[in-house]
Amino acid sequence: MPTDCYYVDVPVRWSDMDAYGHVNNVMFVRLLEDARVYALRDWFGHDRDLIDDGLLVARQEIDYLAPMTFNYRPARITMWCSRVSGASFDIAYAVGQADSDVTYALAEVTLVAYDLQAEQPRRLTGPERSALAAVAGEPARLRSRSRGTR
Amino acid sequence: MPTDCYYVDVPVRWSDMDAYGHVNNVMFVRLLEDARVYALRDWFGHDRDLIDDGLLVARQEIDYLAPMTFNYRPARITMWCSRVSGASFDIAYAVGQADSDVTYALAEVTLVAYDLQAEQPRRLTGPERSALAAVAGEPARLRSRSRGTR
Amino acid sequence: MPTDCYYVDVPVRWSDMDAYGHVNNVMFVRLLEDARVYALRDWFGHDRDLIDDGLLVARQEIDYLAPMTFNYRPARITMWCSRVSGASFDIAYAVGQADSDVTYALAEVTLVAYDLQAEQPRRLTGPERSALAAVAGEPARLRSRSRGTR
Amino acid sequence: MPTDCYYVDVPVRWSDMDAYGHVNNVMFVRLLEDARVYALRDWFGHDRDLIDDGLLVARQEIDYLAPMTFNYRPARITMWCSRVSGASFDIAYAVGQADSDVTYALAEVTLVAYDLQAEQPRRLTGPERSALAAVAGEPARLRSRSRGTR
Repeated sequence: MPTDCYYVDVPVRWSDMDAYGHVNNVMFVRLLEDARVYALRDWFGHDRDLIDDGLLVARQEIDYLAPMTFNYRPARITMWCSRVSGASFDIAYAVGQADSDVTYALAEVTLVAYDLQAEQPRRLTGPERSALAAVAGEPARLRSRSRGTR
Repeated sequence: MPTDCYYVDVPVRWSDMDAYGHVNNVMFVRLLEDARVYALRDWFGHDRDLIDDGLLVARQEIDYLAPMTFNYRPARITMWCSRVSGASFDIAYAVGQADSDVTYALAEVTLVAYDLQAEQPRRLTGPERSALAAVAGEPARLRSRSRGTR
Repeated sequence: MPTDCYYVDVPVRWSDMDAYGHVNNVMFVRLLEDARVYALRDWFGHDRDLIDDGLLVARQEIDYLAPMTFNYRPARITMWCSRVSGASFDIAYAVGQADSDVTYALAEVTLVAYDLQAEQPRRLTGPERSALAAVAGEPARLRSRSRGTR
Repeated sequence: MPTDCYYVDVPVRWSDMDAYGHVNNVMFVRLLEDARVYALRDWFGHDRDLIDDGLLVARQEIDYLAPMTFNYRPARITMWCSRVSGASFDIAYAVGQADSDVTYALAEVTLVAYDLQAEQPRRLTGPERSALAAVAGEPARLRSRSRGTR
């Protein structure tokens, strides 16, 4: 993950734990969503919020690296843009915890800019591309990437 | 997806919808979990439930193909085993809906057999391998598989 | 609770359990919501769905009587209308489980008919009152009712 | 509600909104739970956490006073102890939002001290009573309290 990265601290709820006492695998994906809501507002500006214009999740991939327990500390979710195409982009995530060196999960989510009125994907605008360029980084080092063949 | 497949009907809750009025992307992952709980019981037998012995989610990948709305009908989640290794296996999923031909999502989840006492992965047993062989199928046709390079 | 009552079987998800291994107290309230969505459709008719016209939850009261664990069986939620006023009504609930005599919780929820356009409560219509009269029953026997003073 | 009260700021998640675009009625109960987890740690001390010893939710009552929308600000949840008996106590809640005068909900939750080993309620200890006395306040002004008869 890039150093000096953008991150958001997302509080973990007691209820995010499942019957195993670990933050549930599904709730990791919820934490990614919550972090993204804040990141997009920061990246695209508070006045003109891309997410209000429509943004669909087209794909998610997540590697779980270590179990996380509830300990009153927020998850620290580092995010960067790892790919941009005509109408979509990828956000890469590393999920840690404040005051910890452990990386609990790595993930990548593909978002598609969507025209809610026209009900179809739309091209990213110039300002949107610039905003994403400012937080650009490498692809997440997901396990699937290091496999020779699958 | 294989024909004549094993599937579980998982009820969709009204609350699975988000502020967009669609079943939320995170709740799709929740539906996968719920379907898996039933599938593992069916595949491994009701007396000796693998999931009670420990099974960790190591990886999830999901492609969202169409938005799903709440319509009082359950999600029909087709599942098969798409890969087996020493201590882990993949479940592939196709998420549809009863009385519908639409495939809303495809997914693949890697599960690791885990010895909760010893706190380490363990090898799959012979009976477990046989049970998985009985529901074996092809890898899910995820978008990442069809890309030449990434 | 009235005999011969209307009930809905609401599947319990594995994830409804919390770190204690019990169906979480909050998820009981979720089960009430899910049962209500089906009940209102049945009571008010499939064509003209009251909930689509707006119905706000004004108040909830729930007594937890016994811990519920996940056992692959749905919660059986019995519901009846325990009060009707000009613009609101109460639904009383008894939460059991299929194939069990245990009552896990009793609850009462006040719903207000709401005109979403005018953004204000509206009077219940004649047909709505008739529909509620058909499922009328006694107030739920909540603990707060049996206290002399509080 | 008492002035100069103890409160906890609980972040609202985007996903706490339902298809109506309001924080869902069930998620209010989730926010109460999350606030309580922090309050109990503060009230009973960080070393000896009552909730780790077992504390069952016996009853919840909540009045919804105004719809809350997601606006990137946490819910500000004021809490005090409104009743203590031999083995149980009530926490009263007022749910507001940082930088706002609106009270979105009032609630009261009864918690029972529970001996998890013996599987039965237990008496509150002297130190526990002292801790609760330090945050004592009036009963929540719930609608059910102001009704002459029901």
